[in-house]
Amino acid sequence: MSDRTKVHRSPHKESFDPAVARSIVERALVAHVAIVVDGQPYSIPVACSPYGDELLLHGSTASRLFKLLSDGAPACLTITHVNGLVLARSSFESSMHYESLMALGSARIVEGNEKVSALDILTDHLFPQRRGELRASTEKEIKATTILAFPLSEISVKVSNGQPDDLESDLDSDVWAGILPIKTQYGVAIPADNLRPGLPIPDYIATWVIG
Amino acid sequence: MSDRTKVHRSPHKESFDPAVARSIVERALVAHVAIVVDGQPYSIPVACSPYGDELLLHGSTASRLFKLLSDGAPACLTITHVNGLVLARSSFESSMHYESLMALGSARIVEGNEKVSALDILTDHLFPQRRGELRASTEKEIKATTILAFPLSEISVKVSNGQPDDLESDLDSDVWAGILPIKTQYGVAIPADNLRPGLPIPDYIATWVIG
Repeated sequence: MSDRTKVHRSPHKESFDPAVARSIVERALVAHVAIVVDGQPYSIPVACSPYGDELLLHGSTASRLFKLLSDGAPACLTITHVNGLVLARSSFESSMHYESLMALGSARIVEGNEKVSALDILTDHLFPQRRGELRASTEKEIKATTILAFPLSEISVKVSNGQPDDLESDLDSDVWAGILPIKTQYGVAIPADNLRPGLPIPDYIATWVIG
Repeated sequence: MSDRTKVHRSPHKESFDPAVARSIVERALVAHVAIVVDGQPYSIPVACSPYGDELLLHGSTASRLFKLLSDGAPACLTITHVNGLVLARSSFESSMHYESLMALGSARIVEGNEKVSALDILTDHLFPQRRGELRASTEKEIKATTILAFPLSEISVKVSNGQPDDLESDLDSDVWAGILPIKTQYGVAIPADNLRPGLPIPDYIATWVIG
C-alpha cells in the first residue's frame, strides 16, 4: 500500500492479507488495464495470469496499449470479481459483494527464454492441462506476441462480503433481506464447426473451474 | 466512433450496431471507470445502470473518484462481459469470447428531481421489482449519494464470438477444438443473519437474470 493506493471509502473493506490478493489474481481471466494518452485515460480488458509477485499480460506487438506499456507508461491494473447482490431493507444500503485488486506501476517486457516459459504459464492458467496436446508456438507467433509482467507491489485490495448493513430502524420491517450469490461457471463445451468427426471433448476440461 | 475510439487491433471485431452496444450496457452490473490523477491512471469498478444514451453511476459524495468525475475529469468507462474460452488447436490462436464497450468523455452531475428518479432507475436495474417494498430514500441518504450520467456517444464496441481461427495446417490435428461458454448466474438467495423469522424469499428474485 502507498498513499496512492490507500482506501479512503469504506476502509473496513480494505484487505492487507497477501493470501486474499493472491486468491483474487488466481481466479482472474481478465484484468482491466488503464493507461493515459494525451491526458485521456483508456481502460481495456486484457487476458492475464498470475506470475509470482507479478501479473502476466499478453497481446499483439502491434497493439497501441502494449506499445505504450512496453515503453513504461504508468498504468493501473484492476481485477474485479462480482460475487453477489446485497439485498438490504433500503435502496441506500443495497450493494454488492465483490473483490477487487488495483495495482499501480509500469510493466516490464518479458523476453528471451523467459518469454517462452511465460507464454506457457499464460496458456496453463487459462487452459489448464491443454498445452501438452498443442503444438509448440512458432518463432513467428512468439515474435508477434508481446508479453509483459506487471508488478503487484503497489496494490489496493477491497473485499465486500458482509451482511446487509441496515439501519436499526429498518430491521423491524417486513422486507426480506439477504445475499443473492453470483456464480460464474463454465458451461457445456461446443465443438468447432470444422472439428474432425469423432474427436471427443478432452477430460481435463471437466476439471476447469472459475473461482 | 472517433479517432480516439477507432479499433485498430482485430478491426473485424468492432461493432457499430447500436443494439449491440445497448445490449452490453443492459446486462452490466458494474463498469470500470478510469480517471487520471497526476499522470497516474486509476481504474475502479462502479455499479451502473443504463439511462437512455447515458450510463448512470452512483457513489459516495465523499469518494475521490466521484469528486473528480463531478469536476468534469476526462474519464473512460469500460464494460466487459467474458462469455467463453476459445479452444483453438494452438496456444497462439486460443482466445476468449467477450463483449466490451469503452466510452470516453466526462460525466454530468444529476441533480434535483432528476436525481431522485435516477436513483430509482439504478435500484430498478440492479434489483428489479424490489423498490415497491422498500421505503423511500431519506433526504440525508440522497444527499450522501452522488449520481452521475456518463455519455455513451464516443464509444468503441468490440465483440468476439466466432469460431476458433486455426491455421489451415493445424486443422488436420487430433486436438479437440471448440468453445467453452462462461455463464454468469444468480445462485440461491441466502437470508440475512438478522432476518425476522418466517419472511419468505420474494418471488421476484427468481425472475432476475444476468445476461
